[in-house]
Amino acid sequence: MGSDRERNDGGSRKAAGFSPSYHGRSHGAQRHGPRDDPAGWLWGWHAVEAALDNPQRPAPQRLLTTPDRGKMVSARWRTLKPEIVEAGDISRHLPPAAVHQGIALRTPPLEGVSLEEILGPSELAPQGLIVVLDQVTDPQNVGAILRSAAAFGARGVVMQDRHAPALGGALAKAAAGALEKVAVVRAVNLSRALETLGERGWTSVGLDGEAEVMLRNAVNQEAVVIVMGSEGEGLRRLVSEHCDILAKIEMPGGFDSLNVSSAAAIACYEATRRMGARATGE
Amino acid sequence: MGSDRERNDGGSRKAAGFSPSYHGRSHGAQRHGPRDDPAGWLWGWHAVEAALDNPQRPAPQRLLTTPDRGKMVSARWRTLKPEIVEAGDISRHLPPAAVHQGIALRTPPLEGVSLEEILGPSELAPQGLIVVLDQVTDPQNVGAILRSAAAFGARGVVMQDRHAPALGGALAKAAAGALEKVAVVRAVNLSRALETLGERGWTSVGLDGEAEVMLRNAVNQEAVVIVMGSEGEGLRRLVSEHCDILAKIEMPGGFDSLNVSSAAAIACYEATRRMGARATGE
Repeated sequence: MGSDRERNDGGSRKAAGFSPSYHGRSHGAQRHGPRDDPAGWLWGWHAVEAALDNPQRPAPQRLLTTPDRGKMVSARWRTLKPEIVEAGDISRHLPPAAVHQGIALRTPPLEGVSLEEILGPSELAPQGLIVVLDQVTDPQNVGAILRSAAAFGARGVVMQDRHAPALGGALAKAAAGALEKVAVVRAVNLSRALETLGERGWTSVGLDGEAEVMLRNAVNQEAVVIVMGSEGEGLRRLVSEHCDILAKIEMPGGFDSLNVSSAAAIACYEATRRMGARATGE
Repeated sequence: MGSDRERNDGGSRKAAGFSPSYHGRSHGAQRHGPRDDPAGWLWGWHAVEAALDNPQRPAPQRLLTTPDRGKMVSARWRTLKPEIVEAGDISRHLPPAAVHQGIALRTPPLEGVSLEEILGPSELAPQGLIVVLDQVTDPQNVGAILRSAAAFGARGVVMQDRHAPALGGALAKAAAGALEKVAVVRAVNLSRALETLGERGWTSVGLDGEAEVMLRNAVNQEAVVIVMGSEGEGLRRLVSEHCDILAKIEMPGGFDSLNVSSAAAIACYEATRRMGARATGE
């Protein structure tokens, strides 16, 4: 088990981050795809609330709540009757470390969208922010990045279909509702996706601690793609070569290592700050 | 157990985030203090490497490594002979979800420092960045914030002595070495600490999604204290009242909820960006 953990270097919480139904299948070829779990559990108030409010979410199948939560829920969502149970009965469906806050929802996963769908009509000038994740595997980090993407109005988050976490409970909990707000594209080939984005007028900026260009000088466009590599390895070479610019976040402290979701948050902030500054003529 | 988890709303990974020796004492008055665990385990390459390199770290007691890691370690640190064991033997000392990467170190915790120590001589003009955490309890988030604090050159991170996680293995792993680089002050009373900072010329900026001032207009000083509240509740009222300015991160996406470590990273980035811009006359 120890050596299996070592290979799963994407995050220390990974082993606890998948619901049991994912976990048993974790060695198959489809391991990280959303198809892993035809009807997995979501948990936590924000994640479940956002899923029930999301018209794109396939019909949920079961809603478990504690008595207190049940009162809050039944007043809002009348179509799915909550099963009122004890907290421990909810826990039994979930991974050991899941903090469910008295609510869990069994629901089919969201359908992914295509890159074309988030780009919109090709006759319009490209504008906005897209985030590309190259093998960021920790569901906590990806969930936090989805929150940043939603907060800063990204058109979508593009992940490689393999080597990305399932859009399941741990990720949804970390995303605190953002999974229902941001379009997620699962691309077979990220380099090809970056080529498509380039053809459509988007400038891709890869975050790379070795780069010479400062982030603030790199995201000065109307249509910016932020490309993040994995925590351990950074951007893969081929993905890096498909970026228009490589840029680094200036870190005056002499400790050159940010959490990937912290770096993504800064990049989204800086890109939209520059867009806003241009819009208001600052 | 479910209801106990509900109270521990600081983070979904909390239950897995403490080493067993902390966990058994989790209901005592000293629960979150660094004294909880007189000699706990650190794990993960960056965390252990930084601890062994840190002259402030009390003498470590045991170093366990896998055979591969052992070769890398023994060439660097000759004073503490590694015990070469299998990965599973390391895991047995650690929490179930710990990703140890073949290395673990048993060591007494770091001593905290006092607020006076990070402020330096009172005759000098205050300058720089300090981060204050008001009941941010998730060790993963606090670890990520320590990385941001180190990357952006913060003088230190101030936490309430109670309601902050132990400076133990899970936090150290998430901090990826930054725990050894950033001074951590554990204050009995955060409001009092903010008063002291104010008397010494520091401007405290509390992050608050309801604030009217934008972050970029609030961190325009030479000596800035960023004050972050907990994920669920935000800043407590008394702490909020002790801030000089309340500010929000502008989020044009319409989803007003960032992970606390993402928000802290953006605030540290923006504060040092403004300091750098003044320094270079931009």
